[in-house]
Amino acid sequence: MRSFYDIIADKRDGKKLSREDIEFFLKSYLDGSLKDYQMAAMLMAVYIRSFDDEELSVWTNTMLHSGSVMDFSDIPGIKVDKHSTGGVGDKISIPLAPLLGALGFKVPMISGRGLGHTGGTLDKLESIPGFNVNLDIDKFRKAIANIAIALIGQTPEIVPLDRSLYALRDVTGTIESIPLIASSIMSKKMAEGIDGLILDVKVGRGAFMKTIDDAKSLAVNMQGIGRKLGKKVAVIFSNMNEPLGYAVGNSVEIIESVEVLQGKDVPQVTELVLTMAAILLKLFGKVYTLDEGKEVAKKKLQDGSAFDKFLELVEFQGGDISAIKDTSKLPRANHTVDIKSDTSGVVTDINALDFGKALVFMGGGRFRKEDNIDHSVGIVLNKKVGDKVNKDDTLYTVFYNDEKKFADAMDCIKDSFKIEKELLNPEPLIYDIME
Amino acid sequence: MRSFYDIIADKRDGKKLSREDIEFFLKSYLDGSLKDYQMAAMLMAVYIRSFDDEELSVWTNTMLHSGSVMDFSDIPGIKVDKHSTGGVGDKISIPLAPLLGALGFKVPMISGRGLGHTGGTLDKLESIPGFNVNLDIDKFRKAIANIAIALIGQTPEIVPLDRSLYALRDVTGTIESIPLIASSIMSKKMAEGIDGLILDVKVGRGAFMKTIDDAKSLAVNMQGIGRKLGKKVAVIFSNMNEPLGYAVGNSVEIIESVEVLQGKDVPQVTELVLTMAAILLKLFGKVYTLDEGKEVAKKKLQDGSAFDKFLELVEFQGGDISAIKDTSKLPRANHTVDIKSDTSGVVTDINALDFGKALVFMGGGRFRKEDNIDHSVGIVLNKKVGDKVNKDDTLYTVFYNDEKKFADAMDCIKDSFKIEKELLNPEPLIYDIME
Repeated sequence: MRSFYDIIADKRDGKKLSREDIEFFLKSYLDGSLKDYQMAAMLMAVYIRSFDDEELSVWTNTMLHSGSVMDFSDIPGIKVDKHSTGGVGDKISIPLAPLLGALGFKVPMISGRGLGHTGGTLDKLESIPGFNVNLDIDKFRKAIANIAIALIGQTPEIVPLDRSLYALRDVTGTIESIPLIASSIMSKKMAEGIDGLILDVKVGRGAFMKTIDDAKSLAVNMQGIGRKLGKKVAVIFSNMNEPLGYAVGNSVEIIESVEVLQGKDVPQVTELVLTMAAILLKLFGKVYTLDEGKEVAKKKLQDGSAFDKFLELVEFQGGDISAIKDTSKLPRANHTVDIKSDTSGVVTDINALDFGKALVFMGGGRFRKEDNIDHSVGIVLNKKVGDKVNKDDTLYTVFYNDEKKFADAMDCIKDSFKIEKELLNPEPLIYDIME
Repeated sequence: MRSFYDIIADKRDGKKLSREDIEFFLKSYLDGSLKDYQMAAMLMAVYIRSFDDEELSVWTNTMLHSGSVMDFSDIPGIKVDKHSTGGVGDKISIPLAPLLGALGFKVPMISGRGLGHTGGTLDKLESIPGFNVNLDIDKFRKAIANIAIALIGQTPEIVPLDRSLYALRDVTGTIESIPLIASSIMSKKMAEGIDGLILDVKVGRGAFMKTIDDAKSLAVNMQGIGRKLGKKVAVIFSNMNEPLGYAVGNSVEIIESVEVLQGKDVPQVTELVLTMAAILLKLFGKVYTLDEGKEVAKKKLQDGSAFDKFLELVEFQGGDISAIKDTSKLPRANHTVDIKSDTSGVVTDINALDFGKALVFMGGGRFRKEDNIDHSVGIVLNKKVGDKVNKDDTLYTVFYNDEKKFADAMDCIKDSFKIEKELLNPEPLIYDIME
């Protein structure tokens, strides 16, 4: 057996690690014989030297098998999931999961919480009174068998190694590593026992990946891992320069999700939800083209079956469905203020990062993992990039509880709306799709 | 104040760290607020990205001031020291320190122990019955004031940060980093309160630096640090392909050192000792040329004053001077065997690394830091590279205590002597000198 030192030194020097070395290294960390400082040195070496496809696949697979791997093979149907690399106003999972359920897929979705300027699906769902994201594995399985979908948080059984590695990366300058991000995401997704996955890689100021090149590199890494494990993985690259849709916050994003599920065409959000559903339909041979897939999916929004699936989900997970049927029952902030334009023109830019930060300042997001969330606060845009604006039009509405926090939030976004004579180069919502 | 994460991330991305960042980072490690795993990530980033001169100087200076910095300015005379990067048979400090003392220098020398295939001055000195390398700072100062020289081990007061960093590097794959080696050596040497330093950078199979390029890079780093701190630093690059001199072991190297001090011309050893003394004499303007310096130094070996200085040293540090006057009283192994040549020709190679390892197998060196040393075992060469050999001539003599360990040692060196028709490209003892 080679020494920890030699294995670290090989990666340090840019050499390829063998399957045996990677398995021995990760298992030793899991059993405590390899220490945090040795793993930290390795993570930094991996950050700088990277992994080739084979190393990445072995690393991810070893992480995956550090805990329980779910098996839904006794439940009929194709199991799929969606993962987003995170952004501002990204509520896609909430309408998408019920839509996929209505389309006949099984969706065992394990989601995350918000951190920094990016929101989290679990936090948004917890805006619904009573909604429980902490189902145990048995209840999770029962949800998939009975109502086809469930949206829960990370469980202790799933990829325990990722929790320790993520915590270590978070304090050692090794978060932003493409192979480490890819292995973290994919190990958890592969542990869900799914057949296919749609990855939404966000690109732009409000996203983790600032350039399409980085996004492509991450996507290729993740797709490679999935395929080596025999899973179908498609990737969509979507714009995260302005907030996605109109709502930024927790209960306000539930409201927007409900609108999509009730068949309203919410710009950007409905389009992205339909496209992602269509990609999965095509990936599993249910339709021939994305356009056909979007039509099939759109019907499920329009005929109420996706919304009904959402009501089933909320009920199964203990949520108050009356607050979905009448969203005025969702948490509401005490104060509402409309922010008006002091000029006329066309919106050429809305800085997503600033809006994400403003939400955190208002208490709707987290600076640190242990922070609590105020579900009632939020911002709802009234104008999007490309919209015409007259002086005194409302640009956005802020829902807040605390004047001081409101002032901090306004500091973040006071210059975040750019209004000019014309919009010269409109950016697409979807940059690319890798099927 | 910037976060630990940001500072690590800057070095990770190859950016230059500011003085404030380096000082904050190292001080936080010393006070415990920065954790081992964060330092491990930084050390790996430094290993791969390196330091520029300014970063290296600030890093070293911060290490230096993590503990006591000695000040001998109240004691008259020029204070100098020598440091070797380590090799096999490298006993130079033992004759050199008394010679420098006889030449009028003050020599507050803090040395190390052997690890792996390289020997350590402290272990060799402890072959002398009663010799105490653990003088406290007061006694050390008294030695410098009264007899001009002292050879002691690392004290807890001197550069405590280096001990923690070295221990961490030792388990995180970050030992072989030129700036980290340079800062480790130079912080300790600068803490000795010296005016000048001669660095003996060993090059070759038995040395840490395998190529002259790596050796030059280390030397330039160390000289740069020393000069930024206002010290005179010269470097000699010497051959470590074959063992230095004839003796490899602890008591056998004391015997060889005594021979040099008694004026015997021991090939390689006497030459290197005289050259290094001459470099220091020239560095401080005592002579005009190295040849003149060597003549001046040689007289001190021949007139007995260097040997007398060594006796004073041994006596001051509690050693039995009768074992120096009659070296047959030094520890002797129970068994002696002469290894003969089975062929005739010229010695073209003696692999120093193999001989260093053989000594460790016999118990004369350490596999791990906590191992004890058997001072009595050793190997004494009878032939050196370039010597003519007839069949059945003794190549070397082995002094051992344990048959099993002897067999393991012989396994290391059975093919380490190369005898051929002629030696085509003899290597010099001294590759270069940087004054």
